[in-house]
Amino acid sequence: MGSIDANPAAFEAFGATGVDGFQPLNAEDVRSYLHKSVDFIYDYYKSVESLPVLPGVEPGYLRRLLQSAPPTSSAPFDIAMKEVREAVVPGMTHWASPNFFAFFPSTNSAAAIAGELIASAMNTVGFTWQANPAATEMEVLALDWLAQLLRLPASFMNRSTGGAGRGTGGGVILGTTSEAMLVTLVSARDAALRRIGSDGVAGITRLTVYAADQTHSTFFKACRLAGFDPANIKSIPTGPDTDYGLDPAKLLEIMQADVDAGLVPTYICATVGTTSSNAVDPVGAVADVAARFNAWVHIDAAYAGSACICPEFRHHLDGVERVDSISMSPHKWLMTCLDCTCLWVRDTHRLTGSLETNPEYLKNDASESGTVTDLKDMQVGVGRRFRGLKLWMVMRTYGSAKLQEHIRSDVAMAKI
Amino acid sequence: MGSIDANPAAFEAFGATGVDGFQPLNAEDVRSYLHKSVDFIYDYYKSVESLPVLPGVEPGYLRRLLQSAPPTSSAPFDIAMKEVREAVVPGMTHWASPNFFAFFPSTNSAAAIAGELIASAMNTVGFTWQANPAATEMEVLALDWLAQLLRLPASFMNRSTGGAGRGTGGGVILGTTSEAMLVTLVSARDAALRRIGSDGVAGITRLTVYAADQTHSTFFKACRLAGFDPANIKSIPTGPDTDYGLDPAKLLEIMQADVDAGLVPTYICATVGTTSSNAVDPVGAVADVAARFNAWVHIDAAYAGSACICPEFRHHLDGVERVDSISMSPHKWLMTCLDCTCLWVRDTHRLTGSLETNPEYLKNDASESGTVTDLKDMQVGVGRRFRGLKLWMVMRTYGSAKLQEHIRSDVAMAKI
Repeated sequence: MGSIDANPAAFEAFGATGVDGFQPLNAEDVRSYLHKSVDFIYDYYKSVESLPVLPGVEPGYLRRLLQSAPPTSSAPFDIAMKEVREAVVPGMTHWASPNFFAFFPSTNSAAAIAGELIASAMNTVGFTWQANPAATEMEVLALDWLAQLLRLPASFMNRSTGGAGRGTGGGVILGTTSEAMLVTLVSARDAALRRIGSDGVAGITRLTVYAADQTHSTFFKACRLAGFDPANIKSIPTGPDTDYGLDPAKLLEIMQADVDAGLVPTYICATVGTTSSNAVDPVGAVADVAARFNAWVHIDAAYAGSACICPEFRHHLDGVERVDSISMSPHKWLMTCLDCTCLWVRDTHRLTGSLETNPEYLKNDASESGTVTDLKDMQVGVGRRFRGLKLWMVMRTYGSAKLQEHIRSDVAMAKI
Repeated sequence: MGSIDANPAAFEAFGATGVDGFQPLNAEDVRSYLHKSVDFIYDYYKSVESLPVLPGVEPGYLRRLLQSAPPTSSAPFDIAMKEVREAVVPGMTHWASPNFFAFFPSTNSAAAIAGELIASAMNTVGFTWQANPAATEMEVLALDWLAQLLRLPASFMNRSTGGAGRGTGGGVILGTTSEAMLVTLVSARDAALRRIGSDGVAGITRLTVYAADQTHSTFFKACRLAGFDPANIKSIPTGPDTDYGLDPAKLLEIMQADVDAGLVPTYICATVGTTSSNAVDPVGAVADVAARFNAWVHIDAAYAGSACICPEFRHHLDGVERVDSISMSPHKWLMTCLDCTCLWVRDTHRLTGSLETNPEYLKNDASESGTVTDLKDMQVGVGRRFRGLKLWMVMRTYGSAKLQEHIRSDVAMAKI
């Protein structure tokens, strides 16, 4: 394969021979730039503890340090690295610092960074199975592994269910919890519209969604993105009597009143580990209330879900077998660098029914056979990175015992 | 800073001293794992041309090669790398191969991979300016640089407009074009609802959106995600008489008929370089039609937008000064690895008006001063990677002349 005459592109891009011209993926340059970057990262990790976590810069500082127009000529990679050291680092809020305690943790690991690096270099776009079988199958495998660590019911897993054939459950890795909320909200919305026999989306004004007032603001935003009526997005008050968790009796009362008023309860978001108060909504009890109204239940366990890989914390997910979907973000507490939000659903057809596209240029035998997962149909976009690799790398390299040790160590420190 | 007593977390995470326990970010391990990954990438680039582009694997192949349950114990990083070599690589569709000609290109470069690697290691979550000033300002700067290369009007740029103070324009880097479409659709939807005095979202059944039938399927999906009525998502037929570009006269006729029927034209997506036929919708003429109806015009230049950094191809964007938003993806043709979709809008307030959240835990002086950009308010989610670094790295290292040479070389090859 490949000769100068037959395939000039090969030489332009990879520069395997002495052809003149621009070779942005010349393997020698790739190796050189990346080794330099690794040495920078080493120095950064060695020094970050001594840097102030919050930089003392004023808005607009970077523009005063770097040129305001793009250069015409190329420059050695060292120039960019010098500007990173001198202009970028001093303006960073150092999430990687051991002294960083703001927001929620953004934990990371050597294995995750390596996985992300390899994925960036391979740079595949695995929208369908065919577009990268390894990426799709690795994502599916990593999600099944993590589901096992979390002891999610088999109904959420992609794995073949033995003699009974493939189940309807499955997962996908998304960028943010907000996207997990959005795609499940849209699926629940469409199901509710069908259920009430809506003429197009006319019935949307009757659909209602629910969450405790401790729920992350991005949930209420996701509801608006999906077109729900602001008046029908119900924030349920909580208080110290339930440790700021959702009160199922109050939820039932509000939902019943809505039904009596002709509204259609469509979706409930239950949080395991809220952002402001770390409250835990009672998953099983919420699912029981939702079942009366045929409403979709989603669990947002973005941060605290990682803790549920430890048997002693797993009870926070009790009842998960009765919900429709659950998401959690290993980029928060399971040492997998941004971005990595895992979404599992009990019935992938409910997702793909709303999110599937089938353009001519993506048609292929594997997809039409129905034996493969095309992950584009479980997310907002079409393009997608090979995110499964880093998540698998973390579990493969560290193993569940070390991951549990990491969680327990953090919990113990929090108790001090 | 940092002693065992004062800050045990530092030693747990970074392992700077001889404390026993799990040290997933031990700098020595980070360096070792990453150098090994770089060597793997070097070997991969050296060999990828000789690999079949499409792997000969059957659905489920990976599960037969790797263990189906996560391991309990940790394993040397070399084990994971061995499995990547033996199980992942043989199942890859090699987008990085010079023999890959499917779909659209997914171009990459040494500088981009380096930028992504550094961002992964820093692993910041720059939702607000304060959460990482350098990441926010670098993203803004990289977008302004690219806007200059594309000769976008200054009204789309973030840069201060001299004595007149900051303009209303600005940009954001998103994951996919679909997200760019979704956030602009939602903004246009909300503006139209306000304009017609809708009671909540009741008026949504009257809102209409338009695009040529050559438009990417993800546009029609984004419309459904945003809650538009399927019947009001108009696919305008095209044909050889306009080279499959949108016919402004036909668009005007359809929009006027909709208005006459009591509907409200809300959004038009014009594509510069469609997926199936590479058609180009006439931007200026579309903008003129849209102006009659106060409809939002978005340009999707995902793939072909990169070519517009060359003066001889720039005319495809003529009229851009009259549209509301434009997106293009450097991860397609500007050598910036996934994911990197740039969205510019003329009035950021129209975006943030629909997408802003303001939870207590994110409040800070810089945001409240109004002098900074909080990029979370221009996207679906809250969390976000430091994507600006790789885009800036590409322009900083290669310079505009080489980037233009890259485009021209590809165009010349396509003509052969």
